[in-house]
Amino acid sequence: MLKKIPKILSPELLKVLMEMGHGDEIVLADGNFPAVTCGQRVVRCDGHGIPELLDAILELLPLDVKYSDKPVGLMEVMAGDSYQPVIWQTYNEILARHENPAPQIDYIERFAFYEKAKKAFAVVTTGEGALYANILLKKGVVV
Amino acid sequence: MLKKIPKILSPELLKVLMEMGHGDEIVLADGNFPAVTCGQRVVRCDGHGIPELLDAILELLPLDVKYSDKPVGLMEVMAGDSYQPVIWQTYNEILARHENPAPQIDYIERFAFYEKAKKAFAVVTTGEGALYANILLKKGVVV
Amino acid sequence: MLKKIPKILSPELLKVLMEMGHGDEIVLADGNFPAVTCGQRVVRCDGHGIPELLDAILELLPLDVKYSDKPVGLMEVMAGDSYQPVIWQTYNEILARHENPAPQIDYIERFAFYEKAKKAFAVVTTGEGALYANILLKKGVVV
Amino acid sequence: MLKKIPKILSPELLKVLMEMGHGDEIVLADGNFPAVTCGQRVVRCDGHGIPELLDAILELLPLDVKYSDKPVGLMEVMAGDSYQPVIWQTYNEILARHENPAPQIDYIERFAFYEKAKKAFAVVTTGEGALYANILLKKGVVV
Amino acid sequence: MLKKIPKILSPELLKVLMEMGHGDEIVLADGNFPAVTCGQRVVRCDGHGIPELLDAILELLPLDVKYSDKPVGLMEVMAGDSYQPVIWQTYNEILARHENPAPQIDYIERFAFYEKAKKAFAVVTTGEGALYANILLKKGVVV
Amino acid sequence: MLKKIPKILSPELLKVLMEMGHGDEIVLADGNFPAVTCGQRVVRCDGHGIPELLDAILELLPLDVKYSDKPVGLMEVMAGDSYQPVIWQTYNEILARHENPAPQIDYIERFAFYEKAKKAFAVVTTGEGALYANILLKKGVVV
Amino acid sequence: MLKKIPKILSPELLKVLMEMGHGDEIVLADGNFPAVTCGQRVVRCDGHGIPELLDAILELLPLDVKYSDKPVGLMEVMAGDSYQPVIWQTYNEILARHENPAPQIDYIERFAFYEKAKKAFAVVTTGEGALYANILLKKGVVV
Amino acid sequence: MLKKIPKILSPELLKVLMEMGHGDEIVLADGNFPAVTCGQRVVRCDGHGIPELLDAILELLPLDVKYSDKPVGLMEVMAGDSYQPVIWQTYNEILARHENPAPQIDYIERFAFYEKAKKAFAVVTTGEGALYANILLKKGVVV
Amino acid sequence: MLKKIPKILSPELLKVLMEMGHGDEIVLADGNFPAVTCGQRVVRCDGHGIPELLDAILELLPLDVKYSDKPVGLMEVMAGDSYQPVIWQTYNEILARHENPAPQIDYIERFAFYEKAKKAFAVVTTGEGALYANILLKKGVVV
Amino acid sequence: MLKKIPKILSPELLKVLMEMGHGDEIVLADGNFPAVTCGQRVVRCDGHGIPELLDAILELLPLDVKYSDKPVGLMEVMAGDSYQPVIWQTYNEILARHENPAPQIDYIERFAFYEKAKKAFAVVTTGEGALYANILLKKGVVV
Repeated sequence: MLKKIPKILSPELLKVLMEMGHGDEIVLADGNFPAVTCGQRVVRCDGHGIPELLDAILELLPLDVKYSDKPVGLMEVMAGDSYQPVIWQTYNEILARHENPAPQIDYIERFAFYEKAKKAFAVVTTGEGALYANILLKKGVVV
Repeated sequence: MLKKIPKILSPELLKVLMEMGHGDEIVLADGNFPAVTCGQRVVRCDGHGIPELLDAILELLPLDVKYSDKPVGLMEVMAGDSYQPVIWQTYNEILARHENPAPQIDYIERFAFYEKAKKAFAVVTTGEGALYANILLKKGVVV
Repeated sequence: MLKKIPKILSPELLKVLMEMGHGDEIVLADGNFPAVTCGQRVVRCDGHGIPELLDAILELLPLDVKYSDKPVGLMEVMAGDSYQPVIWQTYNEILARHENPAPQIDYIERFAFYEKAKKAFAVVTTGEGALYANILLKKGVVV
Repeated sequence: MLKKIPKILSPELLKVLMEMGHGDEIVLADGNFPAVTCGQRVVRCDGHGIPELLDAILELLPLDVKYSDKPVGLMEVMAGDSYQPVIWQTYNEILARHENPAPQIDYIERFAFYEKAKKAFAVVTTGEGALYANILLKKGVVV
Repeated sequence: MLKKIPKILSPELLKVLMEMGHGDEIVLADGNFPAVTCGQRVVRCDGHGIPELLDAILELLPLDVKYSDKPVGLMEVMAGDSYQPVIWQTYNEILARHENPAPQIDYIERFAFYEKAKKAFAVVTTGEGALYANILLKKGVVV
Repeated sequence: MLKKIPKILSPELLKVLMEMGHGDEIVLADGNFPAVTCGQRVVRCDGHGIPELLDAILELLPLDVKYSDKPVGLMEVMAGDSYQPVIWQTYNEILARHENPAPQIDYIERFAFYEKAKKAFAVVTTGEGALYANILLKKGVVV
Repeated sequence: MLKKIPKILSPELLKVLMEMGHGDEIVLADGNFPAVTCGQRVVRCDGHGIPELLDAILELLPLDVKYSDKPVGLMEVMAGDSYQPVIWQTYNEILARHENPAPQIDYIERFAFYEKAKKAFAVVTTGEGALYANILLKKGVVV
Repeated sequence: MLKKIPKILSPELLKVLMEMGHGDEIVLADGNFPAVTCGQRVVRCDGHGIPELLDAILELLPLDVKYSDKPVGLMEVMAGDSYQPVIWQTYNEILARHENPAPQIDYIERFAFYEKAKKAFAVVTTGEGALYANILLKKGVVV
Repeated sequence: MLKKIPKILSPELLKVLMEMGHGDEIVLADGNFPAVTCGQRVVRCDGHGIPELLDAILELLPLDVKYSDKPVGLMEVMAGDSYQPVIWQTYNEILARHENPAPQIDYIERFAFYEKAKKAFAVVTTGEGALYANILLKKGVVV
Repeated sequence: MLKKIPKILSPELLKVLMEMGHGDEIVLADGNFPAVTCGQRVVRCDGHGIPELLDAILELLPLDVKYSDKPVGLMEVMAGDSYQPVIWQTYNEILARHENPAPQIDYIERFAFYEKAKKAFAVVTTGEGALYANILLKKGVVV
């Protein structure tokens, strides 16, 4: 542990966040996501919820609000599914706290999301139990 | 994630618990413990408190109550230190819930504890912030 | 060995089952299956029959009964072969014991089965001697 | 699998048996033995009983009956323990079937047995549930 | 060395033979064959002739006489080459000694043989000096 | 690069700082220090001066001011050497800026310093050209 | 450190420069460049500006002025961007100091630059904060 | 060093020459050749000229004079280049000393030569300073 | 295979012989020797007799006849054993063919021989079936 | 190859020279030296004489003339040996060309030299054929 670094971030996760560059993407995946199959790099944060991880990561990681229209991605609710992902409201509040104005969201069809995860820099496994909770972040520029 | 397996346990931690045999020891270490220096194997559970990890581990790991007088170890409060580790009471409740009668505790002097950690099968890093919160568990027999 | 975990499961197999996510597949292969050639990951359980492994795995692994029509696959008897795979009845009984209603079976032509094995998360080698005994399981969601 | 080779033997175990030379020792350890801690090489045969493994191994492995007085080792019942290890009778029958006359047994005190395991060529993990079931074999000469 | 296992077989070669499954192929290559270039796995048996290796391997390895028309492959004499590979007669005698009736031979054009070697499970290097002496074996089923 | 993290810190150095625990030590070594010979872990920061690295590190790394009398070490000027290491004054200013009161300094004889470096968690190579510029930091507790 | 070798060059960077041959390219990337994603080899020089690295590298690395029209590449300012990369003037002065006449510059569209970086021998990460500061160098011949 | 083996050949180079089979090719590359980029295997002989290496290699390596029309390759002088590679005469004398009649030479266009180098078994780096000095050798048969 | 190199020598064995220096020792071990336990490096020549290997090795390896009184070692017949190792006569003839005068033999007690094997540069496994057939060679100088 | 760097130095050797710090030692060993047995790191320069390597290394490597009485070591002629190592005169001339005044020589008994080689940072193998030609260099400080 270090001063200024949220305790929930492991040394490996911090290293991955640092090594990412402008335009690289990272997926925070829920507990059932096929992370080992999809991820080029897998960082395990078993047992944690995504909101607390998201909040900690955004203290350090700039989103690509300047060069990307929608630097945040969520998995679209599937056709015919009436589920309301209430966790999205939590995400919105966390995002709004770290970026002003809040970044636009890209709603991505389920299988397209898998394809984006395979191209992402890393996939972070969590114990998040909410449905449609996977979230993708595109790194911006540190100035 | 699997049925019957607490979500807080990572695949790596479960593998380590399974590979341990009778008499092998594991240390759950607080967030400031020099785990990489002491641990023969280090399993990272950054950001978690020890009580929830302990509870999850004891669902699966039998303590050596039969062959060891004191299959649980805690780090003794240092001479001259008036600190009262209230987390120990939490530990006692968790232990009593999993083993009946509750296992005896071995209070180990600080530097002796470090030496035991170096011989342990694994050291688990956590984000536990309480003082004197490190706890050592000796594995028993599955029958 | 651990409490609640069937003894037949090795630490490596359990780790693989945990790392699998929703939609990932695992093949339990008989003793003559070309597992090293087909498997992205090979977990060796030499000498064991498939029924006892299947039973142990299904204690922990949820099948994808909700999102997949046929979360279990078997290798179709080849055209012109009059062989009756009686082991399938055993499989049906084990499946029915763990999932209610019992999952539907996908009967897969031999070479299509090989192709699916190559894309599976893992192939488990066994000593199963029965013919047409290979079985493929698609992991579901833990809630 | 191959002709003449018992199915219970994995490729890795067979390779280890072949690489052993005259005087090298191998331990078949019960399910609670601290095999990873003790073993220079660990070969996993989770879920199997020791008798069937012993029988299969002795089809191929010669015991050092010629140069060693007691080429087989068992863990002595501890002082004060009235347990009768009935599995030893099974071992005797298997040994007598493979070597004539049957090899002499070296009864080894528990902690001395651990020390011998640490010097052995390999430790084989099993799911054997009987007590005092660990057995040590010293390889002889192939002529 | 072990009882029942021909001395000419190395631990690595035996492990490879065991890991092969139904339909996997192995090439015994003469001393000039580009084995490292072609072989997915290379097992070195430098200095040995192919007949003694073939004889030893067939004591353990079943050929795929049941599911393959021609489970043995030889490199066809090139057009315009009047060479008579007398070693083939030796191969026929060895094959006939291990399989009854003797398996049919697939005569494969030189460059097609190279392509098959690249897809084979393993290529075994030898010191065989005879021309057109490379031989390919397809593994059958152990029942 | 990340928000809040000084740009001079590499991902690897940050990971090392995070993995260090209470009481672990790190050496910032000048350009001529035998870092590869001494260091259990070597983190290369070639070309940088030590003052800017020290300043950046102390933004994140707590010194062990509470449990250690002298959590900072410097290499003592050798007997007979009249050199005045003016860089120490720079170090004092940096230290005082990050810890209040400023930590006490342990002046360590040259060869004793080498021995401490060999036991340290890591040695950081720099391009620092000043003499007697090596500095050792003992990590404290994050609360 | 060695005589004649600029201190800013790490052992690893020097080794990479030596291993490069005629026509191989190296990218000096600014602090936000996705170097790990693009680079076949990544050499980390965190915290340094590009001008001082460029100057040091050109003391040793010949540019391919003889066989290539434009042995130096810069990332073209994007359409609609009025930014004036003043660092280019610094680059020009450094280039002119090392090669006479100064090498021609290839202005490369942003995404084409990424593609060239993926094919380059190595990408060097820096802490350079200027925009459009990435620079690509093609190695020439040492005579 | 060994009897009969030229001193200039390193253990690694000799091992590579032995592992090559009939038809495999090796490139002796001059000091500016992009060997790491092109070579599947790179054997470093920095500082040596090619003639002395060629002479040593041909003491052991048979050229494919029997099955290949042109078992030796040279890089063709580029169109418009009036350079006369006098080193070729040296090569011819060395080749004639080892093979009778001297093998035919394949003159290969520059970029085609690069492609052949990428498919070769190995590329040997040297310190050869002559232009157009790269030479490719196709291994023949040892009888 | 190469010209001048005996076919029985594998690429790995030749590399080991080359890497050995003045005074380094190599053991040719019979088929029952515990080579993996004793050898710092193990080179497998399964199935070969020692005389043909010895003859091939001595074509290339100089014995240390100049600086060592007894550059060849044999395992002394054990007290009470009337066995006459006739293979020694074969060894003497081979040695005399390669060194003139024939080198003196060091007869080494069995367990002292094991200790020397553990310090040797390499141990070569063979299929040699004769008793007391292990032989140790000390490398001399190539001039 | 690079400008200013002697061509005889390989990338690996240069990296080793750079990683060495003040007081680290390197041995240039003749062709019969047991370099693999003695060297913590072995850098192969097969086929080269030591004088040309020494000359190239001293262009870059400072000797420890300031802090060490005798920063150069040679292997003492053994008692009873009348050999005159004329190569020492060559070494003296090379040393005098690079350091003024020429560094003092430490004449080291043969077996003491071996011990120093085992503690050295690296041992460089060469093809040097002169006797008593091994030379040890202690690195100094770059200012």
